[in-house]
Amino acid sequence: MNFASDNWAGAHPSIAAGLSAHAGGFSTAYGDGALDEAAYQRFNEIFEREVAVFFVATGTAANSLSLTAYNRSGGISFCHRESHVIEDECGAPEYFTGGSRLYAVDGALGKIDPNRLDRAVGRFAPESVHSGRPMAVSITQSTEVGTIYTLNEIARISAIAKHHKLPLHMDGARFANALVALETTPAEMTWKGGVDILSFGGTKNGCWCAEAIVLFDLDRARELAFLRKRAAQLFSKSRFVAAQFEAYFKDELWLDTARHANAMAARLAALIEDSPSARLAWQPQANEVFAVMKKAEAERLHLAGAAFYDWHKLHDFDGHIGEDEALYRFVTSFATTTEEVDRFGQLIAG
Amino acid sequence: MNFASDNWAGAHPSIAAGLSAHAGGFSTAYGDGALDEAAYQRFNEIFEREVAVFFVATGTAANSLSLTAYNRSGGISFCHRESHVIEDECGAPEYFTGGSRLYAVDGALGKIDPNRLDRAVGRFAPESVHSGRPMAVSITQSTEVGTIYTLNEIARISAIAKHHKLPLHMDGARFANALVALETTPAEMTWKGGVDILSFGGTKNGCWCAEAIVLFDLDRARELAFLRKRAAQLFSKSRFVAAQFEAYFKDELWLDTARHANAMAARLAALIEDSPSARLAWQPQANEVFAVMKKAEAERLHLAGAAFYDWHKLHDFDGHIGEDEALYRFVTSFATTTEEVDRFGQLIAG
Amino acid sequence: MNFASDNWAGAHPSIAAGLSAHAGGFSTAYGDGALDEAAYQRFNEIFEREVAVFFVATGTAANSLSLTAYNRSGGISFCHRESHVIEDECGAPEYFTGGSRLYAVDGALGKIDPNRLDRAVGRFAPESVHSGRPMAVSITQSTEVGTIYTLNEIARISAIAKHHKLPLHMDGARFANALVALETTPAEMTWKGGVDILSFGGTKNGCWCAEAIVLFDLDRARELAFLRKRAAQLFSKSRFVAAQFEAYFKDELWLDTARHANAMAARLAALIEDSPSARLAWQPQANEVFAVMKKAEAERLHLAGAAFYDWHKLHDFDGHIGEDEALYRFVTSFATTTEEVDRFGQLIAG
Amino acid sequence: MNFASDNWAGAHPSIAAGLSAHAGGFSTAYGDGALDEAAYQRFNEIFEREVAVFFVATGTAANSLSLTAYNRSGGISFCHRESHVIEDECGAPEYFTGGSRLYAVDGALGKIDPNRLDRAVGRFAPESVHSGRPMAVSITQSTEVGTIYTLNEIARISAIAKHHKLPLHMDGARFANALVALETTPAEMTWKGGVDILSFGGTKNGCWCAEAIVLFDLDRARELAFLRKRAAQLFSKSRFVAAQFEAYFKDELWLDTARHANAMAARLAALIEDSPSARLAWQPQANEVFAVMKKAEAERLHLAGAAFYDWHKLHDFDGHIGEDEALYRFVTSFATTTEEVDRFGQLIAG
Repeated sequence: MNFASDNWAGAHPSIAAGLSAHAGGFSTAYGDGALDEAAYQRFNEIFEREVAVFFVATGTAANSLSLTAYNRSGGISFCHRESHVIEDECGAPEYFTGGSRLYAVDGALGKIDPNRLDRAVGRFAPESVHSGRPMAVSITQSTEVGTIYTLNEIARISAIAKHHKLPLHMDGARFANALVALETTPAEMTWKGGVDILSFGGTKNGCWCAEAIVLFDLDRARELAFLRKRAAQLFSKSRFVAAQFEAYFKDELWLDTARHANAMAARLAALIEDSPSARLAWQPQANEVFAVMKKAEAERLHLAGAAFYDWHKLHDFDGHIGEDEALYRFVTSFATTTEEVDRFGQLIAG
Repeated sequence: MNFASDNWAGAHPSIAAGLSAHAGGFSTAYGDGALDEAAYQRFNEIFEREVAVFFVATGTAANSLSLTAYNRSGGISFCHRESHVIEDECGAPEYFTGGSRLYAVDGALGKIDPNRLDRAVGRFAPESVHSGRPMAVSITQSTEVGTIYTLNEIARISAIAKHHKLPLHMDGARFANALVALETTPAEMTWKGGVDILSFGGTKNGCWCAEAIVLFDLDRARELAFLRKRAAQLFSKSRFVAAQFEAYFKDELWLDTARHANAMAARLAALIEDSPSARLAWQPQANEVFAVMKKAEAERLHLAGAAFYDWHKLHDFDGHIGEDEALYRFVTSFATTTEEVDRFGQLIAG
Repeated sequence: MNFASDNWAGAHPSIAAGLSAHAGGFSTAYGDGALDEAAYQRFNEIFEREVAVFFVATGTAANSLSLTAYNRSGGISFCHRESHVIEDECGAPEYFTGGSRLYAVDGALGKIDPNRLDRAVGRFAPESVHSGRPMAVSITQSTEVGTIYTLNEIARISAIAKHHKLPLHMDGARFANALVALETTPAEMTWKGGVDILSFGGTKNGCWCAEAIVLFDLDRARELAFLRKRAAQLFSKSRFVAAQFEAYFKDELWLDTARHANAMAARLAALIEDSPSARLAWQPQANEVFAVMKKAEAERLHLAGAAFYDWHKLHDFDGHIGEDEALYRFVTSFATTTEEVDRFGQLIAG
Repeated sequence: MNFASDNWAGAHPSIAAGLSAHAGGFSTAYGDGALDEAAYQRFNEIFEREVAVFFVATGTAANSLSLTAYNRSGGISFCHRESHVIEDECGAPEYFTGGSRLYAVDGALGKIDPNRLDRAVGRFAPESVHSGRPMAVSITQSTEVGTIYTLNEIARISAIAKHHKLPLHMDGARFANALVALETTPAEMTWKGGVDILSFGGTKNGCWCAEAIVLFDLDRARELAFLRKRAAQLFSKSRFVAAQFEAYFKDELWLDTARHANAMAARLAALIEDSPSARLAWQPQANEVFAVMKKAEAERLHLAGAAFYDWHKLHDFDGHIGEDEALYRFVTSFATTTEEVDRFGQLIAG
């Protein structure tokens, strides 16, 4: 019953098999091999247009380099207060950009409130050397709290960004989970809605290590190649990422693993809703479930073999948390089984 | 006949199998899993003492973070003019350190000349805010030109570094190739000889992506954990590296692959020596062979299916290169076959 | 009637005379001249202990280098939401530190709320590579909104910083104004209360360009010398700053100019309080007065020759601002005359 | 007999008087005051075209920000091996640019050898993410060793820079000394010869602290304003620099002080040439004289009250230096008197 994180899972058997299948033979290094090229082409197909793809080692790298691609002196990027870039990356975005700033914007359910965003950005107009200046807007899809921006919501954020002449970055560490939940297309969820650059994550959804920056703003591709290498994010045997993506996209594996993870989360949420000892903090929309329960109950569950995290780090939760209660996070993945979920359900059935 | 680079090879079958074997099950992320811990323990055994191990994505990251671990304002690191840190990393060491400087020191056969090093470092004494100040010495083992520092040579460089109170970094992207050539132990080739921090490369020697910083100066381990995360080099599913290292070290696979690569280089060198149309630039000691031949001959070989690089980028070659000649580099690896080498030998046999 | 800013004034006649007096003769450059040494000695006397003094070009440099002196990877410095470091320095503190973060803490009247500070810092315990880690606390004395931390308030903030093992920085761009208002000593207001490093400003209080970092933590002095030079803040003809400080401290000029500026602010505040068309936003304690009035009234005053700024940039003002009203800032200095203030008083007397 | 450095002098009486004259009254801060605008206008006149002028605190700042204005990832700037940017700025250019590299090019008499420059830059073509890429060329006029690039030499360097699409920076810390020696115009010596950005120094030639970046490439002016502020180089009471430049340019004071300094150097050189105990290392062209003499003789002169520096730090001196001899540097300035020089002449007359 492991709900600690989707990065506690290993690799999907098809991903492992893909890697093995491509272990032999020689290939041009540094992203210029035939398998790399084939993977880039797959990205073009999936996004229904030409995109520039940059494999990197981690989601933090994808996010940090994405912002670096739009770096400017005195720059300020706007993100949600709970976002990974500001909460979980040890200042990598600031470090990569040589000191640009992240500006936390609030909003319910882990999503930037458009009005707050507009006001926050607006504070910096007109541009002044003293206050610094806006540089980018970054949203997370699905969010850090398991919710999802609708296409309309993305369009609204995008319109504000465009109004202020800012690029829109999407942290898609859990891109697939959002995609299948919205039943939309990658194109609709990104560039057609105004996204300029995307951190496309495969790792949490079944790969070993497969993260990519997908750049829609092709004019910046050449520069990003230098930014990536300078940041020590250019793999020599790049095809080990390409091989994973090949398997990831083949026969829609990535959509299946994401659907499975989401379904497991929904199943878990339903069991929590029915439970006398826990209640949902909010309705999950992707593969993360947040619930409130007594600390003693959580301890009992941990002892019974369930792994999940106390999520006290959440900044703002407007629901009720009793004095002896706490907020907990449960994450599902391709590797979560119905049996595990149901076993957990029995534990909390009271 | 692929002698382009050892990073053009894929993964050794045992590495691929190791990855597959560990694809299932849940494990703590970010380097704290059981497989990670087991791998760290293996490093302890191999180096015959406690070391701090940090998996990173690339050799460039290992080098850049190693220098960052010893970063200081106005810092200057001394390396060979042909070294990877200064020639092939797009300024990553300078970027990671926020602007420290690399100082190129000359020396025959890709190895820092100790007297030149001493003079170069000595120029900055006494310490002055104007000139900046020495920060580290970095050597490459085996070197970029396929040669090897003897243990005595390492000790000599180390003594100079210590005299100037500088840490000694070793870029071991081809660590195993040097190790088996010297028939020594990892401990002798590193900390026993005064090396403080090591970039330990597995990728070029049969892994997909397995690079580690091995830190002997344990007081800096805590800080390096932050430096690595801030540089976006902390893998979530870290066990995918650990699994590679497990297989890499098992039954001395890594020594076998390195011995094979070196043997292939020696075989190739012998064939070149015997050839009427090419001559060795210098004697290879690891898995890289440099040869001089007519450009027309090189073109003929390329057309016949041999892959290798023109190495005009070498700064100083004191041998003779005729007007219609050039210097070429041939790299062998675990994946190079005797048949390939011999086929090439026939091509140049005249 | 110029209340735009205290940096709109020029130099006090004694400062100008001091510069002229020392224009001749030769002197060691880069801060090692006799006049520099004499100035450092004066700082020792004024602070009643040995301090390390570093002249720099701007208050932004003093603040940014002060934080850089305590820089760490993933570092986070806590400051008030209205503080100069976060609002008015174009990201210089982040830039100088290569990407450390500023964390805005709220608090009434421009002063950090100790409880909020404690909670904000506490969120980062225990230390984690993901979230980054606290690095420093920075307070401004007098604050950006013309208020003053009492000695007790400084001690409270300091205790929290010490509890979390953090250094305490004081931005003293208007140090003298606070000092004379509190009728205390420089020692009491700084190191005796737990301040580790101080940005000591002379420019706003009558100098042309005289800013210094006063470091109480002498172990860091050697490093700070490098940090300053690397940041291009080491003046060659350093005595031009020393000469200003000599005149600044002579016969307590600096206390007189600060008292005058504060008195002018108090006089202005009293006139505003008596005015039918404006009201104080809060009671001024140093040399800045904030008032609310109708925009039309402000325009009338501007047209009548009064210079002062609309201060809409304030984040949180819990007083009432009517729809056709706005918040305005008035700053006084050594150069403000009673006549100017009274003339303004007549204008608003209705 | 102070020949230690031109920055050991104080301020010219006219500069001091200019500062005093402008000490009173209010003025817009941060470079937007009337006196600032007048100074900018003077620069336009002096350079016979519109230029963008940025006052900064130090020559190091001017140089570092000039290179930062042309910063790019993996960037490499080419400068002479003896240049101030690489020898005397504690890595500030690398720090300001977040890690770009300085590449030392050799050349006789402190001047970049055009052929070596062309080869050095050419090594990086075609552009590759591994090696990094050229970013700028920087020359020093007059040079660190008291010599001067002729207009033709500047044109030659400029042509190479342009050929490689690189901007040309001139470090003009001693701009005036070169200008009067060449008997040319500021326009001819800069933008008409292909210089894109200039560090214009007033400090060494009679000011207290008056350094400016003169940008001919106006498209970059807006960005440079942010770069300067972010680097803490924007003075609040900016008019204190403007006042110095006003006096500096008035009645051609700056040309007079430079001519005087150069004449003193020539006089000193003639005396050295006539001396039995010292010999010129090379012919001085500006205000610095380099001579070889016995160390014992130098010590005797020091004891007799002559201040000058041992210049062992020079990398390459192809003249003869005997075993008990050394190279020494003598710098003259506006403040050097004929009497001083002649007194020194008598000392070495034997």
